[in-house]
Amino acid sequence: DDSSVSPDVCIIEEEESEEDESYSGNSVDEARKLFAWLINPVIPADFFNNAWEKRPVHVKRGVPEYYKPVVSTSDIDKMLRNNNVQFTKNLDVTSYSNGKRETHNPVGRALPNIVWDYYKNGCSVRLLNPQTYIPKLALLNSSLQEYFGCSVGANIYLTPPDTQGFAPHYDDIEAFIMQVEGQKHWKLYAPKSESATLPRFSSGNFTEDEIGKPIMELTLQPGDLLYFPRGTIHQGRAVPGSHSLHITLSCYQRNTWGDLMEKVVTAAVRIAVEENIEFRRGLPQDYLNFMGIAHSHESSSQRTDFIDKIKSLTMKLFDYAPIDAAVDQMGKQFLHDALPPVLTAEEKQCSSFGDGHRMGPNGKLISGGEITLETKIKLLRAHIVRLVSEEDSVRIYHSIDNSLEYHGEEPQYLEIAFELAPAVEHLICSYPEFIKVSELPLESEEQKVQIIGDLWERGLLLTDGILKPVIDC
Amino acid sequence: DDSSVSPDVCIIEEEESEEDESYSGNSVDEARKLFAWLINPVIPADFFNNAWEKRPVHVKRGVPEYYKPVVSTSDIDKMLRNNNVQFTKNLDVTSYSNGKRETHNPVGRALPNIVWDYYKNGCSVRLLNPQTYIPKLALLNSSLQEYFGCSVGANIYLTPPDTQGFAPHYDDIEAFIMQVEGQKHWKLYAPKSESATLPRFSSGNFTEDEIGKPIMELTLQPGDLLYFPRGTIHQGRAVPGSHSLHITLSCYQRNTWGDLMEKVVTAAVRIAVEENIEFRRGLPQDYLNFMGIAHSHESSSQRTDFIDKIKSLTMKLFDYAPIDAAVDQMGKQFLHDALPPVLTAEEKQCSSFGDGHRMGPNGKLISGGEITLETKIKLLRAHIVRLVSEEDSVRIYHSIDNSLEYHGEEPQYLEIAFELAPAVEHLICSYPEFIKVSELPLESEEQKVQIIGDLWERGLLLTDGILKPVIDC
Amino acid sequence: DDSSVSPDVCIIEEEESEEDESYSGNSVDEARKLFAWLINPVIPADFFNNAWEKRPVHVKRGVPEYYKPVVSTSDIDKMLRNNNVQFTKNLDVTSYSNGKRETHNPVGRALPNIVWDYYKNGCSVRLLNPQTYIPKLALLNSSLQEYFGCSVGANIYLTPPDTQGFAPHYDDIEAFIMQVEGQKHWKLYAPKSESATLPRFSSGNFTEDEIGKPIMELTLQPGDLLYFPRGTIHQGRAVPGSHSLHITLSCYQRNTWGDLMEKVVTAAVRIAVEENIEFRRGLPQDYLNFMGIAHSHESSSQRTDFIDKIKSLTMKLFDYAPIDAAVDQMGKQFLHDALPPVLTAEEKQCSSFGDGHRMGPNGKLISGGEITLETKIKLLRAHIVRLVSEEDSVRIYHSIDNSLEYHGEEPQYLEIAFELAPAVEHLICSYPEFIKVSELPLESEEQKVQIIGDLWERGLLLTDGILKPVIDC
Amino acid sequence: DDSSVSPDVCIIEEEESEEDESYSGNSVDEARKLFAWLINPVIPADFFNNAWEKRPVHVKRGVPEYYKPVVSTSDIDKMLRNNNVQFTKNLDVTSYSNGKRETHNPVGRALPNIVWDYYKNGCSVRLLNPQTYIPKLALLNSSLQEYFGCSVGANIYLTPPDTQGFAPHYDDIEAFIMQVEGQKHWKLYAPKSESATLPRFSSGNFTEDEIGKPIMELTLQPGDLLYFPRGTIHQGRAVPGSHSLHITLSCYQRNTWGDLMEKVVTAAVRIAVEENIEFRRGLPQDYLNFMGIAHSHESSSQRTDFIDKIKSLTMKLFDYAPIDAAVDQMGKQFLHDALPPVLTAEEKQCSSFGDGHRMGPNGKLISGGEITLETKIKLLRAHIVRLVSEEDSVRIYHSIDNSLEYHGEEPQYLEIAFELAPAVEHLICSYPEFIKVSELPLESEEQKVQIIGDLWERGLLLTDGILKPVIDC
Repeated sequence: DDSSVSPDVCIIEEEESEEDESYSGNSVDEARKLFAWLINPVIPADFFNNAWEKRPVHVKRGVPEYYKPVVSTSDIDKMLRNNNVQFTKNLDVTSYSNGKRETHNPVGRALPNIVWDYYKNGCSVRLLNPQTYIPKLALLNSSLQEYFGCSVGANIYLTPPDTQGFAPHYDDIEAFIMQVEGQKHWKLYAPKSESATLPRFSSGNFTEDEIGKPIMELTLQPGDLLYFPRGTIHQGRAVPGSHSLHITLSCYQRNTWGDLMEKVVTAAVRIAVEENIEFRRGLPQDYLNFMGIAHSHESSSQRTDFIDKIKSLTMKLFDYAPIDAAVDQMGKQFLHDALPPVLTAEEKQCSSFGDGHRMGPNGKLISGGEITLETKIKLLRAHIVRLVSEEDSVRIYHSIDNSLEYHGEEPQYLEIAFELAPAVEHLICSYPEFIKVSELPLESEEQKVQIIGDLWERGLLLTDGILKPVIDC
Repeated sequence: DDSSVSPDVCIIEEEESEEDESYSGNSVDEARKLFAWLINPVIPADFFNNAWEKRPVHVKRGVPEYYKPVVSTSDIDKMLRNNNVQFTKNLDVTSYSNGKRETHNPVGRALPNIVWDYYKNGCSVRLLNPQTYIPKLALLNSSLQEYFGCSVGANIYLTPPDTQGFAPHYDDIEAFIMQVEGQKHWKLYAPKSESATLPRFSSGNFTEDEIGKPIMELTLQPGDLLYFPRGTIHQGRAVPGSHSLHITLSCYQRNTWGDLMEKVVTAAVRIAVEENIEFRRGLPQDYLNFMGIAHSHESSSQRTDFIDKIKSLTMKLFDYAPIDAAVDQMGKQFLHDALPPVLTAEEKQCSSFGDGHRMGPNGKLISGGEITLETKIKLLRAHIVRLVSEEDSVRIYHSIDNSLEYHGEEPQYLEIAFELAPAVEHLICSYPEFIKVSELPLESEEQKVQIIGDLWERGLLLTDGILKPVIDC
Repeated sequence: DDSSVSPDVCIIEEEESEEDESYSGNSVDEARKLFAWLINPVIPADFFNNAWEKRPVHVKRGVPEYYKPVVSTSDIDKMLRNNNVQFTKNLDVTSYSNGKRETHNPVGRALPNIVWDYYKNGCSVRLLNPQTYIPKLALLNSSLQEYFGCSVGANIYLTPPDTQGFAPHYDDIEAFIMQVEGQKHWKLYAPKSESATLPRFSSGNFTEDEIGKPIMELTLQPGDLLYFPRGTIHQGRAVPGSHSLHITLSCYQRNTWGDLMEKVVTAAVRIAVEENIEFRRGLPQDYLNFMGIAHSHESSSQRTDFIDKIKSLTMKLFDYAPIDAAVDQMGKQFLHDALPPVLTAEEKQCSSFGDGHRMGPNGKLISGGEITLETKIKLLRAHIVRLVSEEDSVRIYHSIDNSLEYHGEEPQYLEIAFELAPAVEHLICSYPEFIKVSELPLESEEQKVQIIGDLWERGLLLTDGILKPVIDC
Repeated sequence: DDSSVSPDVCIIEEEESEEDESYSGNSVDEARKLFAWLINPVIPADFFNNAWEKRPVHVKRGVPEYYKPVVSTSDIDKMLRNNNVQFTKNLDVTSYSNGKRETHNPVGRALPNIVWDYYKNGCSVRLLNPQTYIPKLALLNSSLQEYFGCSVGANIYLTPPDTQGFAPHYDDIEAFIMQVEGQKHWKLYAPKSESATLPRFSSGNFTEDEIGKPIMELTLQPGDLLYFPRGTIHQGRAVPGSHSLHITLSCYQRNTWGDLMEKVVTAAVRIAVEENIEFRRGLPQDYLNFMGIAHSHESSSQRTDFIDKIKSLTMKLFDYAPIDAAVDQMGKQFLHDALPPVLTAEEKQCSSFGDGHRMGPNGKLISGGEITLETKIKLLRAHIVRLVSEEDSVRIYHSIDNSLEYHGEEPQYLEIAFELAPAVEHLICSYPEFIKVSELPLESEEQKVQIIGDLWERGLLLTDGILKPVIDC
């Protein structure tokens, strides 16, 4: 019953929002609009100030068709029919009744007749990484990545009327539940301790005894949205007489200050050892005899001195902390986890996916136009590349060839000459503006054309219009 | 120049052949028609009597559009644009000039602009397993498998005018070269020895000195076919002024009596050891002192006796040879190597891919019809399953879930109860006739419905019409 | 009770045997004497005619000290104290009472106090590969290998009074049980079927119900020997009031005609495929449709022809059987499994282990003598090397550097030039005679000195006396 | 010429030192005496104040036989003859002449005749981990570990007269060169930069051009010692007319504050994330757009804030630093790297290696004495165990079963109940005093006897005299 909803949670009636139809050419702006649509009519700024990582939000929208364009139950039937969807890898069949949570996955392909037989018998169906097979979901998630600056995933849940598929638990991701069809009744519970708030890892299943009273209880109607922070214990049940279909968008998994700090301090110690002889001096010969848990109850000047020394070295670490390099390692990881960009028709035309040499019918090769100093170019997306300095070389990591399957490819990169790095920096910092190849801060014109040609060929650049073909004489 | 063609090779002018439009319901018959189309107007029986594994055949057809429906140069451009085609794994860029054979593959994705740039500069393009991305080729090869009883592969070769991409060499497969576009001039050479005739493994590259005079020389015109047996040394060059596009179909790789014999005798020794104590008795204590290559020039009664004993044991092996089981191992390997079947719309409707429970819009589950004792069923294809007895169980290996990528999946099988094997045997032996479920040679009606339900659910069976829905009361 | 012993088993009262004290220089002769000592007073020829692989033999010797020189209970205490003997890898603690067989091994080092505590509580102790730590056992087994032409192993069993450590079972080796201390009562049972006679693999544990009546029952006294063939079901129990210590020598594991036949026919098919085009021809296109277990109940001329063809090919196999090469593969395996030779002091002096360059005190290098054409040499043991032709090279496999631990080293070999093989053949065939280096059937004198130098340096040769030092001028 | 020795290096004439003959029962004290003997007549306190990690020291002792008891050239000959010493793994044959450094190792066993042939031809011989085969060296190093609190290794170098085996280079360990036989002329050079001072990793080979002028030049006489810190570039050459045999003792490899800091801060971040929600909060959504090397030249308040935040988090790390646990990880690593202790005859008698149940001749079990509350015990060595809390359990890591071969065993430990940890702490802190079992700070007497029994059985404890046997009634 929604009347139990806690009063400090924003619940807003839907108003008409007009979608901005013009494409801005800035992937972050586009993603911002998409997120605004997702949580509309809540204002993103309000959302981040009041709710993000703090409290659940139920958006009661009253527009039942709102999320329908993304997916439907018949899309799922089609997906099973046309693809080798595998139990356990791509799809789980689950149930939760009388406090017992079960997974019923057989081995092998999830053929539609088998899946629907389970469904008929009251089992829930969970699709893992469904964006692999559902292009509109791939587009949604791929775009939102540009907004969140981290990888965005999705599961789809289909639940028969009056059943529940999962035990109460919490996850390690920020969750946006898009109710597409039917109704689901949710109960949310507060984390059980401060250390379970914004947790790093998901929980196991809880029993009803363990979780106390809900802090919020509500029924999602078609078109509604429910957000809750990682760590929020939750359980949902399709209401009698109505199936439920929802998408759970997830993000911000292991994307915290602590994750970055791991990279920062590991690298800081390595650099401090290289640069500061204090870190390279030998330990006292007898330190094993007064330090260690066996000695932790002792107090001695030796222990005090030793601990002081560690403190002093720790305090020096910040001087060696390679913060930008550590951020680039986070960015590199993001580009490995990320969905590839989904290009518009126009973007294809203005990149190597549509432009360049083409093979026509009957072996007729149509030469593509040429990049010159006058060509205007920009990166395909704000987050399409990361410039990383590692193993004595400069690498441009990118997500352009990523698979729709999670980690379907190894991390992809181009290695470039050290002296070309400023050109890539310039491209990154100029985004979303087009710049002329001639503007690149490189010494020679050959270098400018060369680096842009290489990036363009890999599909990482957009040109400002189709390249002008050069007439071979 | 074609005038040098050796006289015992059949070269036949193309006549109109009318394609049989009615679908027979027998995958082997269908594949036979497809093969007849491939080599038309040569008569298959003649082909197998006179040419197969014996000599090359050039079919001059005079119908330039004959093979066009399968693939074209613009299909290849599209394939590169829309898929993450990888150099080396999926595509090679090669050249052969002045006796030097080179592969120019960079690392990473074969982006169209890069590939066509090589092509512009005189390199040949070879597509490996292009059926992964070209559905019509997958259909062609998948169907021909039913005829040849072994896996059928394909490469596509695109060659710029007046160039050659490969050095003279021979392959380990029977080759059918379908000239799709342009013209290519071929020189064929006899195997250099009896042991290189019908060889087990492909050769390396030969120099011109090593291969002698061609036994056949010819120019393929669009729509022509060229067949030659494994072991035939060959080289081809696009003629001046014309590019060349051809498909090479390949089959009968490691599909010989020797390959079967390996399996037969290994198993025969194992069984002989189990069943015949003579095979389990100890070797003479001193045999190492008179046998072995160091003693092979000696003659002694000890050696004679030892060799006679081995001869006598070898002669007994046939009594223990599990020929049918060894054939099933060949069949199992075929089903792992095979392309999956490509179903017609009608076949989909009459199998679990289209029939059975369906999820409609808005969570509406449409219950599928039910298999009863009266239902008439048959296997989807002649070669869709193999019944194999191994590791103390009965397994039905199949290719229904195979990937278009070669060995993209592990061997797939269902394990069934020993007593249900006769039902599967009956299905296999009845093909291509439909039989009633009730006709299966099993004791109980439950068993009959159960095994057919299991096979149908995996997509291995066709029903004679759509299943009749059962009205739930 | 011994009265139940079956009458056809030889039980002989011990008479004085005089041991031959002169060393013959032939490792096989020496091993023959050692085996004669082991089974004395039974005559080896009688043993092999009447008992070997046929029936058990109990040698009642009446000389309690006979086997004492090999090992004693205090040797075992010392072994545990001085070596990192590991439970499970080197030592098992077991019990069998009330039909229940248990292994009590803790994890880690088998420290003496722990082991003897188990023993005190009625557990048996089994030492696996004790020759690693007990030099006299290593000498015994290493020598016997020269007689049996296969690897010889040993376990030691120490059993507390009136207990049994193992359930009834059979092994896959020929067993010689040397009763060293105390008394053990044995019951032996016939194999349960013809196919369990001389079996290829050991059995699991049997219950008393499964094994029927003993065919032989006896009590071993100190100094007695009990032989039984692989497949003989057995159980033994220390008699009340007396512990039992025995060694079980084992040999002839997987050393049968069948094991050799596996190698012979696998290689024969490979060669037949290379040499006979019949084996390289393709299988009939439709063979999968009439062969296989699903078709095994059918009879058709197709099946008959197919089976006849397989028969005919099988019958041809012997013509391609590389018997000597297959024996060499057995010999190579033996040299990998084998214990290294144990050299006498004199042998050390006449091999590179004692002769050759020496480093004396204070960096004084004493140059060793030189091998010349006049030097007389022979192999160190009859079974010290195996000449094997494989992977297009000639290899001399040997056991000289083997570890006392089973398979402690990878197979060891020297690769030699093809044209030097006759020299090694000559050495092998001349054994046990010394020959002059000049006698080797090689073209050049350099080659003769070179190959002998290489073999001598590795320790594989004995010289006829110490090498004469050459005076450096 | 020694006259070039820099004046601030202590060179001291040898005086008679009287060795303390009484065994103190404290392994650290014993090791201190051994080290004093090693550097005698230099005073350890002076050494550590003036030289350790700072500058080379040449101890001119004038007692040529001083180090002879440890090893001699004939020991090395014996070692090669009696063990399967392998080239590359155990022994290198090297040369350095005309600026060219070569390794001549063949494959396989380093047979004496082969090794000495290289030596005759001017090659140096380096033995790696020779303590595996030379017991006195194992004793020396094992003992010194107790002094240094880290693993102590050794190489042995044998150099023919007037040759040099190695190019100039520096190592990553503190080096003590014990000149055993002959004379060697050394040149030492200062590190080339501050960051190459006390380096973490060894250098490659330098050319003469790269290293400048020696800071010290000297000739070691038999019985002399040379110490130099890690990072000191060095080269040595046997003088004309004299071979050279020396041992290089090595220690303090990766045993620095930096190595400990790695463990401290990695663990500190992990704990901070668990305990402080600030570390678990999400990163700013747009941080990838202003941080990273591509943005490192920009200045913005966003960057400043981000960097300040990292600084603030870094400063908090010390509050979460588990220093004692990190030290225990260092100690655990030491116990894995360490040589096992070498026990005196008396120690054997008073530990489970000599005491406890014994198996005598003829199966006669002699029951050992029993540990009671009155038994007095202490640890076998100061550094024999490390108490480590990890993976939710308490483990006692130890080196008692380590192999003489480096890392020949996996890390060895006993897992104990959490409540028994105080007993082990007490044992550690009481060392080197004997304590009564009854004194252990545990609740029950059973627990006291149990934990001591377990440790004693593993060989980790000494009793104060032989255990009193208990008479079984």
